[in-house]
Amino acid sequence: MIVRDRPSALALLFIVRGSVVPRILPHLLVLALFATAVVVLHHQQWVVLPEFSLAPFALLGIALSIFLGFRNNAAYDRWWEGRKQWGEMVYKIRSLARSSETLLDLEAENGRAGELRRQLLHWAVAHCHALRAAVRNEQCEAALIEWLGETDAEQALTHKNVADYCLRRAGRVVGKLYRDGNIDAIGLRILDEHLTRLSGVQAASERIATTPLPFAYTLLTHRTAYLYCYLLPFALVTAMGGYAVLFTLVVAYTFFGLDVLSQEMEDPFGREANDLPLDALCRVNEISVAESLGRTPPEILMPKNHRLE
Amino acid sequence: MIVRDRPSALALLFIVRGSVVPRILPHLLVLALFATAVVVLHHQQWVVLPEFSLAPFALLGIALSIFLGFRNNAAYDRWWEGRKQWGEMVYKIRSLARSSETLLDLEAENGRAGELRRQLLHWAVAHCHALRAAVRNEQCEAALIEWLGETDAEQALTHKNVADYCLRRAGRVVGKLYRDGNIDAIGLRILDEHLTRLSGVQAASERIATTPLPFAYTLLTHRTAYLYCYLLPFALVTAMGGYAVLFTLVVAYTFFGLDVLSQEMEDPFGREANDLPLDALCRVNEISVAESLGRTPPEILMPKNHRLE
Amino acid sequence: MIVRDRPSALALLFIVRGSVVPRILPHLLVLALFATAVVVLHHQQWVVLPEFSLAPFALLGIALSIFLGFRNNAAYDRWWEGRKQWGEMVYKIRSLARSSETLLDLEAENGRAGELRRQLLHWAVAHCHALRAAVRNEQCEAALIEWLGETDAEQALTHKNVADYCLRRAGRVVGKLYRDGNIDAIGLRILDEHLTRLSGVQAASERIATTPLPFAYTLLTHRTAYLYCYLLPFALVTAMGGYAVLFTLVVAYTFFGLDVLSQEMEDPFGREANDLPLDALCRVNEISVAESLGRTPPEILMPKNHRLE
Amino acid sequence: MIVRDRPSALALLFIVRGSVVPRILPHLLVLALFATAVVVLHHQQWVVLPEFSLAPFALLGIALSIFLGFRNNAAYDRWWEGRKQWGEMVYKIRSLARSSETLLDLEAENGRAGELRRQLLHWAVAHCHALRAAVRNEQCEAALIEWLGETDAEQALTHKNVADYCLRRAGRVVGKLYRDGNIDAIGLRILDEHLTRLSGVQAASERIATTPLPFAYTLLTHRTAYLYCYLLPFALVTAMGGYAVLFTLVVAYTFFGLDVLSQEMEDPFGREANDLPLDALCRVNEISVAESLGRTPPEILMPKNHRLE
Amino acid sequence: MIVRDRPSALALLFIVRGSVVPRILPHLLVLALFATAVVVLHHQQWVVLPEFSLAPFALLGIALSIFLGFRNNAAYDRWWEGRKQWGEMVYKIRSLARSSETLLDLEAENGRAGELRRQLLHWAVAHCHALRAAVRNEQCEAALIEWLGETDAEQALTHKNVADYCLRRAGRVVGKLYRDGNIDAIGLRILDEHLTRLSGVQAASERIATTPLPFAYTLLTHRTAYLYCYLLPFALVTAMGGYAVLFTLVVAYTFFGLDVLSQEMEDPFGREANDLPLDALCRVNEISVAESLGRTPPEILMPKNHRLE
Repeated sequence: MIVRDRPSALALLFIVRGSVVPRILPHLLVLALFATAVVVLHHQQWVVLPEFSLAPFALLGIALSIFLGFRNNAAYDRWWEGRKQWGEMVYKIRSLARSSETLLDLEAENGRAGELRRQLLHWAVAHCHALRAAVRNEQCEAALIEWLGETDAEQALTHKNVADYCLRRAGRVVGKLYRDGNIDAIGLRILDEHLTRLSGVQAASERIATTPLPFAYTLLTHRTAYLYCYLLPFALVTAMGGYAVLFTLVVAYTFFGLDVLSQEMEDPFGREANDLPLDALCRVNEISVAESLGRTPPEILMPKNHRLE
Repeated sequence: MIVRDRPSALALLFIVRGSVVPRILPHLLVLALFATAVVVLHHQQWVVLPEFSLAPFALLGIALSIFLGFRNNAAYDRWWEGRKQWGEMVYKIRSLARSSETLLDLEAENGRAGELRRQLLHWAVAHCHALRAAVRNEQCEAALIEWLGETDAEQALTHKNVADYCLRRAGRVVGKLYRDGNIDAIGLRILDEHLTRLSGVQAASERIATTPLPFAYTLLTHRTAYLYCYLLPFALVTAMGGYAVLFTLVVAYTFFGLDVLSQEMEDPFGREANDLPLDALCRVNEISVAESLGRTPPEILMPKNHRLE
Repeated sequence: MIVRDRPSALALLFIVRGSVVPRILPHLLVLALFATAVVVLHHQQWVVLPEFSLAPFALLGIALSIFLGFRNNAAYDRWWEGRKQWGEMVYKIRSLARSSETLLDLEAENGRAGELRRQLLHWAVAHCHALRAAVRNEQCEAALIEWLGETDAEQALTHKNVADYCLRRAGRVVGKLYRDGNIDAIGLRILDEHLTRLSGVQAASERIATTPLPFAYTLLTHRTAYLYCYLLPFALVTAMGGYAVLFTLVVAYTFFGLDVLSQEMEDPFGREANDLPLDALCRVNEISVAESLGRTPPEILMPKNHRLE
Repeated sequence: MIVRDRPSALALLFIVRGSVVPRILPHLLVLALFATAVVVLHHQQWVVLPEFSLAPFALLGIALSIFLGFRNNAAYDRWWEGRKQWGEMVYKIRSLARSSETLLDLEAENGRAGELRRQLLHWAVAHCHALRAAVRNEQCEAALIEWLGETDAEQALTHKNVADYCLRRAGRVVGKLYRDGNIDAIGLRILDEHLTRLSGVQAASERIATTPLPFAYTLLTHRTAYLYCYLLPFALVTAMGGYAVLFTLVVAYTFFGLDVLSQEMEDPFGREANDLPLDALCRVNEISVAESLGRTPPEILMPKNHRLE
Repeated sequence: MIVRDRPSALALLFIVRGSVVPRILPHLLVLALFATAVVVLHHQQWVVLPEFSLAPFALLGIALSIFLGFRNNAAYDRWWEGRKQWGEMVYKIRSLARSSETLLDLEAENGRAGELRRQLLHWAVAHCHALRAAVRNEQCEAALIEWLGETDAEQALTHKNVADYCLRRAGRVVGKLYRDGNIDAIGLRILDEHLTRLSGVQAASERIATTPLPFAYTLLTHRTAYLYCYLLPFALVTAMGGYAVLFTLVVAYTFFGLDVLSQEMEDPFGREANDLPLDALCRVNEISVAESLGRTPPEILMPKNHRLE
């Protein structure tokens, strides 16, 4: 995710980091060559080129605006829902820490309840790392070992769904607290409810990660945008001469840019410039748990080069 | 559902699988013939054809963009809500597995609680298969026998609403756990709540499957799009000559394509290319239950030919 | 509600049932006469008619597209929310059946609990019929007598809000189950929660039924659409001659059609072609309750002439 | 709120009540004078007026449609959310009545529970009147005295937040029921939950009433609409001559109308024609409570002159 | 936040406070100079300037309307969600006050329960001040000392996440009430649920404050708007001569204005004119708590110069 103060209006025009320009540059160059060729051929009249008026393009514009607008909204919704779900994870882990502190008599005991609470919260942090790894197709072995120890981490990694296993283990700790008499049935219900919502965050993240926008939208949008931009020079050349190349590029910049940006937002858990900073959110959870366990929390992750992973 | 990495920009132009092109091709061909006829007649002047300017089409464009945009959004919302509901099913079945593990003393018992828990989860998986079959108008006998045994499966199939029956049977298992003293009233409430949400997923799926978008929208959209595209050649021929055929086809490709795509999304539980992969989601549930019962889980379903059923 | 498979593209153009054409036909005829008069007068030059260019209509188009698009979205939202609420009713009544089966020891008892459960579910079905009658301004005496017997039905009908009375009576049954010791406080809470949500469905249905879209929208939309269509012939006649009549009608078909359709969706509980099939949904509830009581369920309602009431 | 059957298409054109015409008439008159002046000056050529083509207005149209469309949607959302919240209040007060009837043994007691229940429901009705008064900047003394008696009403009115005080008093009644042993902890929780949601309705109503749409939107919309309409005659006069006045007025009618309507919807709790009928909703609550207490309910409020307050 | 009655139509045109005009004035001036230069050069024909027709700008308009419309909606959603979350905080703190009053036997006790209740509510108010400070990057030491005393305030400020610490301390008070026997497990659950929702408000506020809209949108919107406005004079000058400067400015006023306004809404917790009045909302919470503790509440914050902080 790009995090930066809004630069001046002038600087905004030339910023590259976080921009989609680098990704669409090759396409723009090819299109520029094509448009230039059309202009030259038109001028030299070596070949008789079709001459369009601009009016028919307005008709295509209806479909294009529906496609691009729709896809952009749907992609952003996925991105924002992903962020909301991870925000819910943040407060559910905090609530797990707070509710367990409320429920358990941490001072009067022999420390057994405190130890179980520690395990519960560690499994929750492990869940969050396992989920991050799952939606990003990454490894999480190091993080699991750090929070679970080697034995538990290894056992967790033998499962197909590591994040779900972590939640079930957290549930077992709650069951032990209950059967040991540290919490009553209501206490169990409170903690179980938090775990259920963490499970909901997981299911939603998996949904976003594994269910792309219907592929046919990508095809329709992409094809319409390309047809539009490659037909455009024929229409513009009669009206504007050589400036047709410039205008074609400006139009293509907006259409291709939106296309690429939608594609980036669509899968919000990746590692592209505008994707969600899951590493930083995992760290937020680590801080919450550490503070609630009375430990020195790790540092918050800061953006490097205006970019937060 | 089509699952594939985004191909290169060039490849995107020629992909057929998942595209709506095959479905609208006949319509495009008929339109192409019609447009060609208009161009030829116009050229030969055998008949006096009406000559339109393009301007009136912009007026029709208002209505068309409202119809197409609305229908597309509504259809996609149904598709995405269907996916959300099945995502909720995924995490509710996982929660059923986790909560029951938390609540029940699986080790200390004579195994009776474990057996009831197994039944509970099997009924939940059966529910999911029965619902899949119901919204797809398919058979689910094989899956039910696999998870329930022949006797229970047969009895389930005598009911009008098999999925609802499975949930009621799951509820009876919860009642038995409660009356046997394995769980207390709070435990019953936790498990009952999960079953209630599964029932909610069922009702929502039935709603989407049995309540199509109002038919009048389909009529209005379809008729306006056809009128538009069949009047278009008359207007384009004066402005562009023979290129009118090309342009009419490009415009019709986008309008017909969006129309067909909306129709496909509208009923997300079918077996068309862009529909939801219910088989794969049922398998996800089977894996969750198998892992939580300590069994070797089945393999996750993979897309064949980029297509996940 | 119109329920039918999608007909062929050609058939779609000529279907009348479910279409808005019959309702707007008189308006279209009047407009056709008017437009023809304009064309004739223009041709004969008996009177000097104002000559407009089409460009100013694009300016009006902004407002029209906002009005029509907004009203259409808002009307559809009301329709779909109505369906969602009744879908929630479906699963809350099922949950009432399932939870009560889970909670009550139906076999070991002297049948008293079973009898109370039967009453509870009958009151729930009566609630659904009473609500249907209320939002449709219909009678429900027959249905109430069928499910409650004559005495209770008559008493129910003396109340201003029959549906609410049914829920309160259901609540009393729950209270009796509780005070008789058949369920504990948690059981009461579970059943009470289902009743509360049924009450929520009722309040939402009443909201949709009694709070129309702000009347000023209807006025603005209607007036702008009429002004637009009656001014249109003056602009089209100079550009297209006699075809102005045809084009005016096509444009008017889309605008008037959307206007009438929005009006139909806006009150989703009526008995018009595209309204919600409340009878069929009541039947779904009857089936759920009958099956859960071990009775032979009635038949599901089928569409007649593609129409489900 | 305007409540009426849809009049005939012709009648719709001339209805004044509920229309925004009276409110924008002065602005339209001023604009008509201005446009007439432009036409006359243009004809007489006393002054050289700028001559615009209509094309640049399409560019302004982009911004205008975003502003007007956005503001209209946002304003309607506020209106509809207000209605939803008050619909939730309706069913929460009914649920309070029903749940308390379920929980309390009204027959076997010495009537003490019944008396406390009566107090609870009266405080709930008082809450609803106090909230209505707060969001409308009205008095509610009469209603409070009617439902609470003079002493309690006076004490309530000494508080800054009368509605919140009513809820706290209702909460105290629940506490008394609990400490008297009439309900157990679960019963307290059920009733407390209903009160919490009533508190939620209050907070949402206060939010809508005290947080207007950002003022900058009002400014941008208003200014753009005025600039647009006052520049329009210059462009139309060259194209349409004297009809420019007519067309300018039609366009201004839609823009000013939408502007004024948005403003009316934006504050849904006022007493303008299209505002929410809070009086009638309070009456609905009074009827629910009266019927559940076995009293003769008051009459439902009927619209006067098609208008419900 | 700007709070004022709607001024007259004329006054609206000249209001500066709350308007975005001051912020975009420099940009408008630069653009005016540029446009004037284009007009002069065009007139004097010292240089041959490119001559565009206006038609290509309509093509760019598609992209611009998607960008500006989308960004505006997304920014407003953030603003309104922020307000909703703080509205939820308001009623959750009130509910904490009411539920604790319901649960605790405040009169019969030795005052211990009352003292703990006072602490609970004070921590809740401290939470709200700490959250305000966190999302605004401000200090909250004074407010914390006022509500917690120096010792607790200092200890709170040693934590990374002060607001979360306040909630955990509130949770500890609930735990003490529970272990002291003042509330039972259900009572603990009720209060814990309110604290969980406060934690949800915090997570949502942090989400909005730390996750800006994807930076690429800002870039695309900004660049397209600037390109558009700086190319516009070339097209307008041929059509309108000197009036091109006026029209360019009007168009730029709407585009730049929307751009700047979106930017302001996007971060709703700042201290700009249209941002949310967090100070006033904190005061609302202080009043709720003071009234529920029987203390004289502080005054409500009033807008100064139509502006509420």
